[in-house]
Amino acid sequence: MKYRFADRMFSVPESFIGELFRVSNLPGIISFAGGLPDASLIDLDGIARAAREVLEEEGRAALQYSTTDGHLPLREFIAARYRRRLGIQVDPDEIQIVNGSQQCLDLTAKIFLNPGDVVGMERPGYLGAIEAFSLYQPEICTVPLIEGGPDPAAFASLIRERAPKFFYGIPNSQNPSGATYSDERRREIAEILDGSGTVFYEDDAFGDLFFDGRPRPPVKRYLPDGTMLSGSFSKIVAPGMRIGWICAPEPVLRQFNVAKGAADLHSNLLCQMILHRYLSTADLDAHVRRVAGIYGERCRLMCDLIDDIFPPGVGRTSPEGGMFMMLFLPDGVGSMAVFREGVRQGVAVLPDAPFHADGGGGNAVRLNFSNADTTSIREGMERLARVVRSLL
Amino acid sequence: MKYRFADRMFSVPESFIGELFRVSNLPGIISFAGGLPDASLIDLDGIARAAREVLEEEGRAALQYSTTDGHLPLREFIAARYRRRLGIQVDPDEIQIVNGSQQCLDLTAKIFLNPGDVVGMERPGYLGAIEAFSLYQPEICTVPLIEGGPDPAAFASLIRERAPKFFYGIPNSQNPSGATYSDERRREIAEILDGSGTVFYEDDAFGDLFFDGRPRPPVKRYLPDGTMLSGSFSKIVAPGMRIGWICAPEPVLRQFNVAKGAADLHSNLLCQMILHRYLSTADLDAHVRRVAGIYGERCRLMCDLIDDIFPPGVGRTSPEGGMFMMLFLPDGVGSMAVFREGVRQGVAVLPDAPFHADGGGGNAVRLNFSNADTTSIREGMERLARVVRSLL
Repeated sequence: MKYRFADRMFSVPESFIGELFRVSNLPGIISFAGGLPDASLIDLDGIARAAREVLEEEGRAALQYSTTDGHLPLREFIAARYRRRLGIQVDPDEIQIVNGSQQCLDLTAKIFLNPGDVVGMERPGYLGAIEAFSLYQPEICTVPLIEGGPDPAAFASLIRERAPKFFYGIPNSQNPSGATYSDERRREIAEILDGSGTVFYEDDAFGDLFFDGRPRPPVKRYLPDGTMLSGSFSKIVAPGMRIGWICAPEPVLRQFNVAKGAADLHSNLLCQMILHRYLSTADLDAHVRRVAGIYGERCRLMCDLIDDIFPPGVGRTSPEGGMFMMLFLPDGVGSMAVFREGVRQGVAVLPDAPFHADGGGGNAVRLNFSNADTTSIREGMERLARVVRSLL
Repeated sequence: MKYRFADRMFSVPESFIGELFRVSNLPGIISFAGGLPDASLIDLDGIARAAREVLEEEGRAALQYSTTDGHLPLREFIAARYRRRLGIQVDPDEIQIVNGSQQCLDLTAKIFLNPGDVVGMERPGYLGAIEAFSLYQPEICTVPLIEGGPDPAAFASLIRERAPKFFYGIPNSQNPSGATYSDERRREIAEILDGSGTVFYEDDAFGDLFFDGRPRPPVKRYLPDGTMLSGSFSKIVAPGMRIGWICAPEPVLRQFNVAKGAADLHSNLLCQMILHRYLSTADLDAHVRRVAGIYGERCRLMCDLIDDIFPPGVGRTSPEGGMFMMLFLPDGVGSMAVFREGVRQGVAVLPDAPFHADGGGGNAVRLNFSNADTTSIREGMERLARVVRSLL
């Protein structure tokens, strides 16, 4: 049978990521290519206890259908934490629970984008966002990340000249670069956006994972009506429950809620209730400090090894948090060559080209430091240094 | 701020369903308006035990990221059950796990529909499908349900003349009508579709809930390459976990998998693993027989009351399973009037107009019989009979 698929299916960028991940997981390979938090740091006992209590005390409610917006006590927790940690006033009714923040990418594109509409994002930018947006056939225009965040001149001219429906950015410990916007740049882009008609889509998957524990002010603080702020429990509690959220102004949330209901009625209630129960008793801040501390050690080790044992001409970003950094290759060394030779020598990295929504890249690789212990980081980075040297 | 939403958001049918449900849940109202399974029949002990075991024995794996296609042992269970119950050969790789079968509606529309494409469905048809499809701006063309299934002449001319991308139907205990296709009609529509280029989207949310326990042959048996078959654990285990699946030919599933990954990476793994653990030890067939038996008693009681105490001119469908039936009103009695007067007199029903994707309806109401005990059904139907009589 000949199937007649929609045009949008042909606008998805050819993905070799699946193949990369498959290769990266072959035995004997130390992989910095993935994007997983370290499962050994999950508070399994706390979550198991919460699950037991929910199923014992309110199991039938947790297993029945629920409302599209999400479990109210969980939304109240999120709103209260925003007030306490980030000093922003958020009502629980401005929050919608989703299946991990990836679903925010899909639904935001769905409610805003007609084919051909302009979307702005960072260069390099998050691959999952490029994939989600592409299915809505926009023109993705990028602004380079420079010191302190997106290049303000390029950002201003994009907003002024192309009027994107929204600009998607990750101000805290960006994926893939590990870069964090400066406080000044946050204010600056909020000022540029104010009154422009372009929404800022602020993806804050990593804001809890600053190694110094200090929260950075969200762009939403400077642009409350013009910002959608998404968050996720995947990096700070556990990804397997697929619970994230969007915090958005009421008119946006109303459309988002329609799209969410049509997409899957509601997010799984059992995990929402387990998560809320867990958060009510666990010390999330202490847990997150511990996780961020360990990721920070791994990141510093990786940075030191790059500085110490890699050949000249290699550069890197300096993450203040999160799970990723970027390694810049010497002139003439391509990221696909490093990938291929890396696999042969037992170390996997992610080439940067797929993170360039409008083309380019090819001279950097993304390194994940959250999911390898220090022994693996030492050994893997030694292999990677050999690979780069062999390609010079 | 003025938000610039996508055109598709203005193609969603004006929904008064939320308002109806709100009114239906006011205190003192017996509601037949909803669509919930009876949570008191959920095997809570079995699920709680499964959850405990998963979190004790493989908790860290269950709480980590996973693959887009879904937990392989769960897909193997589904495939094996298809072979055993329905006699169809399905490979686990032809199955993709989703967030309840509502997500199949969204993703199927996403992979097939350009704006303006034709979609076929039953009249009346499932409201959740109308809402999900509408966001992709198709032209929805309907075929009336008559004795035995969709009107074959109207079906054939729709397929021939309009070449819909897919036809969406619920052959087993349809929502809202409660109708079941005859075996002959299943074969007939498969023959009409064969070679036409139109996919049959067979939504089988209720196939386990036949009161007589006899499985009906899926249309997929007669049209394996041309049928997408969706299923759900919501009605047979528990809806709050939001786990359903699609079973589709490989080229369709490949596109579906791309759309699923972009939509939310994967369905929550914890519930997939709890569900699989539960299904490995529970006697699902016996559980489902018990649930279907109880729903059958409630349905028969409702039917008997309609036949016995309602005024002449009232008609009804005769469900063989599922959770819904349709009550046809006497000439001159409108379904919205019955709704409004019903709420005044303490009984809620769902008017049929929203189930008519291309207009029409207005002289029938949907009744849910799964979520009310016999005392409530007696009292509620007496109230409803008074309402109808008062409007004659």
